[in-house]
Amino acid sequence: MTITLIILGDSNMVKLDEKMKEDFSKIKIFPFATASKDGVPNVVPIGFCKLMDDETIWVADNYFDKTLSNLQENPKASIFVWNTETSGCYQIKGDVEIKSSGEDYNRMYNMVKEMGDKYPAKHLVEMKITNVYECKSGPEAGKKLL
Amino acid sequence: MTITLIILGDSNMVKLDEKMKEDFSKIKIFPFATASKDGVPNVVPIGFCKLMDDETIWVADNYFDKTLSNLQENPKASIFVWNTETSGCYQIKGDVEIKSSGEDYNRMYNMVKEMGDKYPAKHLVEMKITNVYECKSGPEAGKKLL
Repeated sequence: MTITLIILGDSNMVKLDEKMKEDFSKIKIFPFATASKDGVPNVVPIGFCKLMDDETIWVADNYFDKTLSNLQENPKASIFVWNTETSGCYQIKGDVEIKSSGEDYNRMYNMVKEMGDKYPAKHLVEMKITNVYECKSGPEAGKKLL
Repeated sequence: MTITLIILGDSNMVKLDEKMKEDFSKIKIFPFATASKDGVPNVVPIGFCKLMDDETIWVADNYFDKTLSNLQENPKASIFVWNTETSGCYQIKGDVEIKSSGEDYNRMYNMVKEMGDKYPAKHLVEMKITNVYECKSGPEAGKKLL
């Protein structure tokens, strides 16, 4: 008997479509939600929230407090993509990795320092998108899109 | 020996100050964050989010999906108060009660129906404010204000 074990790396990741990416590009400040391990929700506005490829978001930690401690104990985050200029409204959930050294961290550090030398760019929060949900007001709200 | 037990009702509630209330009144759409019991964060934009008194926020559930199931199993929520017109940026956390009948529910129902007959106004989510945190970008971000 032969048992074949297939390990699918990153199998739970999803890719944003073109319409979602266009809407994403229209947002300047995103609401970034996290939760402590025991479920206390936290939401803060963030300016540095970049879509690096179809399935990866980079968030810069300049002044994170509860957000950082939440992510350290519970590496999950959620944002929504909406303002008065977007055509749709999407909620994104993802799994997070915190980086404070290495090539990706250095790249984020340089991007943040170009925005302003005062920003400390303490950590790179790399979010891999796992789910996208409809977020427009109406009976379809909450429906899983990706 | 006499032991005096003092039970302070609602002792963990806090009241917004005048500046916070003024900022609150300038927001049309709030980011409303919840989490499942096991800590999966969720954030959605909400239009009906009213400050009813210094320590009480009413949110109308028209089309809640994960938000409702999260609050049913973990009655905690977080919002922030910020847009380009506010003088400050505050994060509010609170404990939530879900009401689907009674005087408060009926009042919310009528308020929602005045906004548009199409809205189902399924539940009133009453949030009692427990904490307020500084949310403006900078070294003070995350500091407990109330």
